[in-house]
Amino acid sequence: DFMQALANDIKPAFGVSAEDFELYIRNGILLWSQTIRDVLEEGHLRINQTIKSEMTPLVTILLEGKPNSGKTALAAKIAMESGFPFLKFCSPQTMIGYTETAKCESIKKIFNDAYKSELSCVVVDDIESLLDYAPIGPRFSNFVLQTLKLLFRKLPPKGRKLLLIATTSEKDIIKEMGLMQSFSKVIHVPNVSRGVEILQVIEQLDCFSKKELDYLSKELRNKSLSIGVKSLLDCIELSKQATDVYRTAKFLSALEEIGGLHDGDY
Amino acid sequence: DFMQALANDIKPAFGVSAEDFELYIRNGILLWSQTIRDVLEEGHLRINQTIKSEMTPLVTILLEGKPNSGKTALAAKIAMESGFPFLKFCSPQTMIGYTETAKCESIKKIFNDAYKSELSCVVVDDIESLLDYAPIGPRFSNFVLQTLKLLFRKLPPKGRKLLLIATTSEKDIIKEMGLMQSFSKVIHVPNVSRGVEILQVIEQLDCFSKKELDYLSKELRNKSLSIGVKSLLDCIELSKQATDVYRTAKFLSALEEIGGLHDGDY
Amino acid sequence: DFMQALANDIKPAFGVSAEDFELYIRNGILLWSQTIRDVLEEGHLRINQTIKSEMTPLVTILLEGKPNSGKTALAAKIAMESGFPFLKFCSPQTMIGYTETAKCESIKKIFNDAYKSELSCVVVDDIESLLDYAPIGPRFSNFVLQTLKLLFRKLPPKGRKLLLIATTSEKDIIKEMGLMQSFSKVIHVPNVSRGVEILQVIEQLDCFSKKELDYLSKELRNKSLSIGVKSLLDCIELSKQATDVYRTAKFLSALEEIGGLHDGDY
Amino acid sequence: DFMQALANDIKPAFGVSAEDFELYIRNGILLWSQTIRDVLEEGHLRINQTIKSEMTPLVTILLEGKPNSGKTALAAKIAMESGFPFLKFCSPQTMIGYTETAKCESIKKIFNDAYKSELSCVVVDDIESLLDYAPIGPRFSNFVLQTLKLLFRKLPPKGRKLLLIATTSEKDIIKEMGLMQSFSKVIHVPNVSRGVEILQVIEQLDCFSKKELDYLSKELRNKSLSIGVKSLLDCIELSKQATDVYRTAKFLSALEEIGGLHDGDY
Amino acid sequence: DFMQALANDIKPAFGVSAEDFELYIRNGILLWSQTIRDVLEEGHLRINQTIKSEMTPLVTILLEGKPNSGKTALAAKIAMESGFPFLKFCSPQTMIGYTETAKCESIKKIFNDAYKSELSCVVVDDIESLLDYAPIGPRFSNFVLQTLKLLFRKLPPKGRKLLLIATTSEKDIIKEMGLMQSFSKVIHVPNVSRGVEILQVIEQLDCFSKKELDYLSKELRNKSLSIGVKSLLDCIELSKQATDVYRTAKFLSALEEIGGLHDGDY
Amino acid sequence: DFMQALANDIKPAFGVSAEDFELYIRNGILLWSQTIRDVLEEGHLRINQTIKSEMTPLVTILLEGKPNSGKTALAAKIAMESGFPFLKFCSPQTMIGYTETAKCESIKKIFNDAYKSELSCVVVDDIESLLDYAPIGPRFSNFVLQTLKLLFRKLPPKGRKLLLIATTSEKDIIKEMGLMQSFSKVIHVPNVSRGVEILQVIEQLDCFSKKELDYLSKELRNKSLSIGVKSLLDCIELSKQATDVYRTAKFLSALEEIGGLHDGDY
Ligand SMILES: Nc1ncnc2c1ncn2[C@@H]1O[C@H](COP(=O)(O)OP(=O)(O)OP(=O)(O)O)[C@@H](O)[C@H]1O
Ligand SMILES: Nc1ncnc2c1ncn2[C@@H]1O[C@H](COP(=O)(O)OP(=O)(O)OP(=O)(O)O)[C@@H](O)[C@H]1O
Ligand SMILES: Nc1ncnc2c1ncn2[C@@H]1O[C@H](COP(=O)(O)OP(=O)(O)OP(=O)(O)O)[C@@H](O)[C@H]1O
Ligand SMILES: Nc1ncnc2c1ncn2[C@@H]1O[C@H](COP(=O)(O)OP(=O)(O)OP(=O)(O)O)[C@@H](O)[C@H]1O
Ligand SMILES: Nc1ncnc2c1ncn2[C@@H]1O[C@H](COP(=O)(O)OP(=O)(O)OP(=O)(O)O)[C@@H](O)[C@H]1O
Ligand SMILES: Nc1ncnc2c1ncn2[C@@H]1O[C@H](COP(=O)(O)OP(=O)(O)OP(=O)(O)O)[C@@H](O)[C@H]1O
Ligand SMILES: [Mg+2]
Ligand SMILES: [Mg+2]
Ligand SMILES: [Mg+2]
Ligand SMILES: [Mg+2]
Ligand SMILES: [Mg+2]
Ligand SMILES: [Mg+2]
Repeated sequence: DFMQALANDIKPAFGVSAEDFELYIRNGILLWSQTIRDVLEEGHLRINQTIKSEMTPLVTILLEGKPNSGKTALAAKIAMESGFPFLKFCSPQTMIGYTETAKCESIKKIFNDAYKSELSCVVVDDIESLLDYAPIGPRFSNFVLQTLKLLFRKLPPKGRKLLLIATTSEKDIIKEMGLMQSFSKVIHVPNVSRGVEILQVIEQLDCFSKKELDYLSKELRNKSLSIGVKSLLDCIELSKQATDVYRTAKFLSALEEIGGLHDGDY
Repeated sequence: DFMQALANDIKPAFGVSAEDFELYIRNGILLWSQTIRDVLEEGHLRINQTIKSEMTPLVTILLEGKPNSGKTALAAKIAMESGFPFLKFCSPQTMIGYTETAKCESIKKIFNDAYKSELSCVVVDDIESLLDYAPIGPRFSNFVLQTLKLLFRKLPPKGRKLLLIATTSEKDIIKEMGLMQSFSKVIHVPNVSRGVEILQVIEQLDCFSKKELDYLSKELRNKSLSIGVKSLLDCIELSKQATDVYRTAKFLSALEEIGGLHDGDY
Repeated sequence: DFMQALANDIKPAFGVSAEDFELYIRNGILLWSQTIRDVLEEGHLRINQTIKSEMTPLVTILLEGKPNSGKTALAAKIAMESGFPFLKFCSPQTMIGYTETAKCESIKKIFNDAYKSELSCVVVDDIESLLDYAPIGPRFSNFVLQTLKLLFRKLPPKGRKLLLIATTSEKDIIKEMGLMQSFSKVIHVPNVSRGVEILQVIEQLDCFSKKELDYLSKELRNKSLSIGVKSLLDCIELSKQATDVYRTAKFLSALEEIGGLHDGDY
Repeated sequence: DFMQALANDIKPAFGVSAEDFELYIRNGILLWSQTIRDVLEEGHLRINQTIKSEMTPLVTILLEGKPNSGKTALAAKIAMESGFPFLKFCSPQTMIGYTETAKCESIKKIFNDAYKSELSCVVVDDIESLLDYAPIGPRFSNFVLQTLKLLFRKLPPKGRKLLLIATTSEKDIIKEMGLMQSFSKVIHVPNVSRGVEILQVIEQLDCFSKKELDYLSKELRNKSLSIGVKSLLDCIELSKQATDVYRTAKFLSALEEIGGLHDGDY
Repeated sequence: DFMQALANDIKPAFGVSAEDFELYIRNGILLWSQTIRDVLEEGHLRINQTIKSEMTPLVTILLEGKPNSGKTALAAKIAMESGFPFLKFCSPQTMIGYTETAKCESIKKIFNDAYKSELSCVVVDDIESLLDYAPIGPRFSNFVLQTLKLLFRKLPPKGRKLLLIATTSEKDIIKEMGLMQSFSKVIHVPNVSRGVEILQVIEQLDCFSKKELDYLSKELRNKSLSIGVKSLLDCIELSKQATDVYRTAKFLSALEEIGGLHDGDY
Repeated sequence: DFMQALANDIKPAFGVSAEDFELYIRNGILLWSQTIRDVLEEGHLRINQTIKSEMTPLVTILLEGKPNSGKTALAAKIAMESGFPFLKFCSPQTMIGYTETAKCESIKKIFNDAYKSELSCVVVDDIESLLDYAPIGPRFSNFVLQTLKLLFRKLPPKGRKLLLIATTSEKDIIKEMGLMQSFSKVIHVPNVSRGVEILQVIEQLDCFSKKELDYLSKELRNKSLSIGVKSLLDCIELSKQATDVYRTAKFLSALEEIGGLHDGDY
C-alpha cells in the first residue's frame, strides 16, 4: 500500500539533486492527522495518472493552505515520491532581486528542461511570491502571471509527460487571477486545529518529559486553535528555552498568542 | 454534404505545417452533440464566403466558450478544413516571455505573410492571453490590443483573401475592449452539459467495459452538469488509475467535483 | 449641380496617389438615402470655404458614426472631390506597432507636407485608433492626443490653405477629450435603419433575382433595423453562399442577427 | 489716452520678431464691446507697473476664456503694446511632439533669455496644452507643471523686470493645479453673447450688403448666444460661400448651430 | 534683547554667501504685528538650542503659511540671524527641470556639506515644490519624499550640530505624507488680516501722502481681510501706477479683489 | 540575572563595528518603566532560542511603536546584547537616494554575509522607509517588499543560525502588506504616557535642580500624555535654553504641545 512506501523513500534516479528537496523537508513530515495522509495519497494518484494516461500528458495540482501550514514540505515530499528521472524545484527564494524578465527566463528554462525528459516533475513553490504579489493595490507582475498561465497549460511535446505541483497561501487571489482553472486538482493543506493533533506532534518529536506530556494532554485534549505546523515547531523550540518549571506554561501561552488556543468547539 | 467531408480531411497544399495544426487536435473532435456539428458547418460556410465573395475579401469569426471547452481544437479543425494554401497558427504559447513589441512584430509578420497568398487562413488563438489580460485591475497590453484591433479590420491587398479565426474564453472582456464588433460572426462553443452527452463521449472513446457503460448510462441519463470536453477527458484518465471496482465511482465523483453533476433540470 | 459632379469624379492633379484613396471606396458610394447626399453636399460646401475664404485658412470637419457605417469611404470620397493638388490619407492602418513617438512623427510629417501646398486636404481616419484608445481604463496615448489637438488648430502659414477631414466612431470620447471643439463642423454618418433603404442598396447592387427582390420588398418594406453599410454588404455576400432556395431566408436571418431587424416603428 | 494708442501700434524695438506676434492677430482686434477695451486697458496698467515699480520686478497676468474667444490674439496685442526690447511668444504649437524634458528646456531658455533684458515680456500661450492636459484621467505633465509653477514665481535678477502674460481656456483646472495663485491678476476674455455685439463685428468687417445688414439687424437685435470671436469669423466665411439669396439664412443657422442663438434674456 | 539684534544683522562669518540670503528678503521684514516678532523669537530660541544642547544635535523647524505670506523671507532672516559658519539655501528655484535623481543628489550634497561644519544651518524652502507636488491625483516624487524624510531625521556625526529650517504652504499635505512628525517645532506664518496691520505696513513703507494715509486709516481701521504680505506689496505697487486722485481707490479695490476686504469681525 | 547583564555590556567579538551600534543608542537606554525591561527580556529569550534551537535556525522579531518611541535604540541594544560574532545594522539612512535595485542588492549582501557566520544578528531598521512607503496612494517599492518578504523567511544554510530584529512605526501597513506573519514575535515599544514615568526620566538625567524636581513632581504626578522618549529628550533640551525662572514652565508647555499633557485618567 502507498502509505508504507512513505517509509523507504524512493530517491530520484539521475540528474536530480535530492538534497535540494530534502532541505525543504528539514523537520520531516509528521503524520499528525488523517488529512496529511490524504494529501500524500492524492499526490500518489496523480503521479500514476501522469505515468499511465494517454490523453493527458500534463497533470497539474495545487497545494493551498495558510502561511506556515507545511505546503512546501508536502510538495517536496510528493515530488520525491514520484521517483521521476527529472525533478526540479522552482522557488522565488532563488530569484530574490531578479527583474521580471530574468524571473521568467528562469522559469521557462526549468520547464524547457523538463520537456526533454520523458517523465518530469516540477514544483512551483509559493506562486504568489513568484508573482511579486502585494495585497496593497493589489500589485503583481503581470509578466510573470502570463508566463505561469501559459506554462501551466502548455502541453509537453509528443512522448513527454509532466507532473506539475504548485503551492500557494493566497488561494483567493490565485483564483481571481484566473490561474485556478489551470489545475486538474486543488488540495487543501490544513492548519493544526485540535488539541489532540498537537499531542500527536509533540509525542512524535519527543520533546517533553513524560510528566509534562501528561499535563499537556489534560490541558489540550478539548481545546481548539489554528496554527501552521511550522509555527507549532517554533512554539516548541521557544518553550525549550524556558526553565524546566515554566516550560509547559510558556508552551501553552505561546499557543494562545499565535494560535488562539481556546476551549474546543468541534 | 459537408459533414461527410469531415471524414477524409483535406490536407493543406504547400508551405503549411499540417502537423502543427494536428497537435492542437491531439484527441480528435468527438461529435458529442449537434452543436458541435453546427460549429463546423458555420465554419464551412465562412470558408466558402472567403473563396467566392467579391465585396468582402476579409472574413472574420470568433469561437468563444468556457476554458477547456475545446475552442482551440475546433478552430484548428476548421482551418484545416479550408484547405487554403496558406495556413498559420498564431498562439501565445509560442510567445511566452516576449515583450509587447516582440509580440506585435510576430503577429504582424504572420498577417503580412498571409497577405502574400491568394487565399489564407490565420488562427489567432486565445486572444485574451495574447493581450496579457489579467482580471485584477484589469490589466492588459494596450499595444497588442491596438495591433489586433487594426489587423482584424485591415483589408488584404487587391486580389488577396483572408479567413481569420480567433478564439477566446473571455467573451465579455473582448466585447468591452471593442474587439467584438470586428467579427462578422461570433460562434459559441458549448460545455458538455447533459448526461447523455457524456455517454456519447465515453462510447466513442471506448474506455469503459460494457458493464460499466450500462451502469454509467443509468446513472448519468437524467443528470445535468457543465464541463469542458478537455476536463472531461481528464476525468476519464483519472478514473482509469483507480482499481477496476472503483473506476466508475471515481469517474462520477470527479464529474461531481469538476462539473457539478446533479439531477437534470432541462 | 454638385450631385451630378459625383458621376464623373475629378481625379486629383499631381503628386497625389488617387489609387490609395480609391482603395478606401472599394465598393463605391451607394446613395441609399438623402442623408448620404447631404453628407457629400456639406463636404462640397467646406471645400469651397477652404478655397475662397480670407479669414479661415484652416477648415476642419469630423465625420462620426457607428462602426461599419461607411465613414472612411465618405471621407475619402469628399477628399477626392476636392481635387486639391495635395491629398493625403493619414490612417492608423499604416502605423501598426509604431511607438507613440514614431506615430507623432508620421502625423506631423503629413501636416508639414500639406503646409507646403497652396491647397491641401488631409484625411485623419479613425482618430480613436490613432490615439490607441481602449474603453477599459480608459486608456489612450496622451502624446498623440496632444499632437492631434495642436495640429487640428494650427493655422497653415501665410498663403496656404488646408481642409482637414477626420473620422471617428467614438464621438463621446472624442468630445470628452476636448478634441470636438477643434472642428468647425461635425457631420453624422447614419446607419441603414429602414427596410426601404436596404431595398435601395440591393437594387443598386443587382445581387438578387427579380423574384427574390419582390419577396424581400414585401418582407422589408415596413421593417426597422440598425446596420452599417459595410456589415450590410457582408450579409449580402454571406447570403450568396447559400443555395438559391435559402438565399433570401439566410439574408433576412443575417439582418436580424446583425441589425436587429424588427417591425418598423418610425 | 490709451485707446488712441491702439490705432498706431508701437513696434517693439530690436531683437524682437514683430511678425511672429502679428501672425497671432491675423484678423485684427475688433472692438466689439467695452469688455475688450477693458482687457486692453488692464494690460496697459500692468505694463506700467512692470516699468515703474520698485518692489515687484515680476508682474504676471492670466487671460482666461472659452475656446475660440480670442485669448491668444489679445495676449499678443498687449505684448506688442508694451514695446519692451525683449518680447517672446512661448507656444505649444512650436513644441509638437516634444518630450517633457525638451519642452521644459525650451521654456526655461525663453525665461533665461528674458532675464538678460532690462525689460521683457513673455507670453505663455495655452498653458493647458503646454501641460499636455487631457480631461480624461485627468492627465498632465507634472514635470512641465512644476517648471511653470516655479518660473511663474521666480524673481528676475536685480535690475531686471519681467511682464508675464499667460492664456488658458481651462481656468478651473489651472486653479486646481495651484497655478492660479501665481498670478497678480486674472482677466476674463468674454464670448460674444448679444446680437448687437455680432452686428458690431459684421459692420466693422463690411462683409454683408446694406440690405443684408438691415435684415440681420432686425433679426439679431434682441437675441442672445455664446460664441467665440474666432468661431464667429468662421460662420461669416461659411455664409459667404452660400449663394446671395441664402447668405443671411446660412449665417443665422450657423450662429444657431454653433452659438445656440435664441431670443434674448438679458 | 533679541529684538534689538534685528537692527544690526550679524553677517555670517566665512564661506557663506550672505547676498544669496538677502535676495530672499528683497523688501526687508516689516514688523506689522506681534506675531512676526514671535516667529523671529522662536527662531532665536532654536538657534540657541542647536548651539548649546547635548542630547539633540539636530534641531528642525517648519515655517508654514499661505502662499505669499512671507515664509521664505522669514526663514532666510532666521538663518542669517544664527550667524552659523555654514549657511545654505536649498531652493527648488535652482533645480528647475532637474530629474528626481539630480534633485536628490543636490539636496544630499547640501546636507553632506553641512555635516562637515561644527555648526550649520540649512533652509529647505518650499518643500512641496521640491516634492513636485500637484494637488490633482495627487502626484509627487516619492523619491524626493523619502530622501527628505530620512535627511530630516538623520543625526549629524559626532561633534556636529545642524539647525534645519523648512518652509511650506501645503501644511496638510506635508502632514499626510508623514513629514510633519520630523519637526521639533511647527511655526505658523500668518496672513495680514486686519486693517490696522495694513496701516502698519504702509506707514513703514512711506508710500502714501499724509492725506491719503488719513483717508486710508479711516477706511481700513475696522476692516478684516486675508492677504499675504507679498501680495500686499503688489497691491501697493499697482496703486502707485494710478493717477494721484484714484490711487487710494485703486488700492482699496485691489485689497478687496485679492484679500476679500470687508467689515471687520474680530 | 539578565537585568544585571545590562550594566556591563558584552561587546561583540570580531568583525563587528560596535561603535556603529552605539551611535544608535547615543543617549543610553533609560529604564523609565517595567515595559522597557520586558522588551529587553524578550530579546534575551530570542537570543537564547537562536543559539540553542534545533528546528528553528531563523528567529525573527519585530519592534513596533510610535515615531520617536525609541525602537532603533532598543533594537541596537538587543543586538549588542547577543554578543554574536556577526552583527549588522541595515538602515535606510545609509541608502538615501539609492534605486530600488541598489537597495535590494545592499540588503541581500548583508544577509548573504550573515549566512557565512555560524551565529548572526541583523537589525533591519525602519522597514517602512526601506520600502519607500508614503501614506498617500499609498506608494511603496514592491521590489523591496518582495525582497524583504523572502529574506525574512529564507532559512540560513545548514549549520548557520540567524536572529533578525526589525523595527517599524507603521505596524498596520506592515500587516496589510503581509509582512507581519513572517515574524515569530511582535514586541510593542510604548510611548511615555504617565507623569511618573517622566519623573523617572528627568531624575535619571539629572537635568533639573532639586527645587524644580519637587515642583515638577507635584505638577506631573497625576497627569497623562503620550510622547516618545526621543521627543521627551528634545523637550528637556529646549527647556534648558530658557532662563532659570521659566525653565519648568517652558518644559511643561512643551510637554503639553507635543505630548498633549492632561489630567490623568488611568
Ligand atoms: N505534516 C507536515 N506537513 C508539512 N510540514 C511538516 C509536517 N510535519 C513537519 N513538518 C515540517 O514543518 C515545516 C513546514 O514548513 P514549510 O516551509 O513547508 O511551510 P509552508 O506552508 O510552505 O510555509 P510558508 O507559508 O512560509 O511557505 C518543515 O520544516 C517540515 O519539515
Ligand atoms: N468536440 C470536440 N471539440 C473540441 N475538442 C475536442 C472535441 N472532442 C475532443 N476534443 C479534444 O479535447 C481537447 C480540447 O482542448 P482545447 O485545447 O481545444 O480546449 P480549449 O477550449 O482551447 O482550452 P483552453 O480554454 O485551455 O484554451 C483536445 O485535445 C481535442 O482533441
Ligand atoms: N453610402 C455609402 N457610404 C459609405 N460607404 C459605402 C456606401 N455605399 C457603399 N459603401 C461601401 O461600404 C464600405 C464602407 O466601409 P468603411 O471602411 O468606409 O466603413 P467605416 O465606417 O469606416 O468602418 P470602420 O468603423 O471599420 O472604420 C466601403 O467598402 C464602401 O465602398
Ligand atoms: N476682439 C478680438 N479679440 C480677440 N481676437 C479677435 C478680436 N477681433 C478679432 N479677432 C480675431 O479673432 C481670432 C482670435 O483667435 P485666437 O487664436 O486668439 O483665439 P483663442 O481664444 O486663442 O483660441 P484657442 O481657444 O483656440 O486658443 C484672431 O484671428 C483675431 O485676429
Ligand atoms: N514681515 C514680513 N515677513 C515676510 N516677508 C516680508 C515681511 N515684510 C516684508 N516682507 C517682504 O515680503 C516678501 C515675502 O515674500 P516671500 O517670497 O518670502 O513669500 P512666501 O510666503 O515665501 O511666498 P511663496 O508662497 O510664493 O513661497 C519679501 O519680499 C519680503 O522682503
Ligand atoms: N528606554 C529607552 N528606549 C529607547 N531609547 C531611549 C531610551 N532611553 C533613552 N533613549 C534614547 O532615546 C533615543 C531614541 O531614539 P530612536 O532613534 O531609537 O527612536 P525611534 O523610535 O527609532 O525613532 P524613529 O521613529 O525616528 O525611528 C535615543 O537617543 C536613545 O539613546
Ligand atoms: Mg512554503
Ligand atoms: Mg485553447
Ligand atoms: Mg473606417
Ligand atoms: Mg489660443
Ligand atoms: Mg516662498
Ligand atoms: Mg528609528
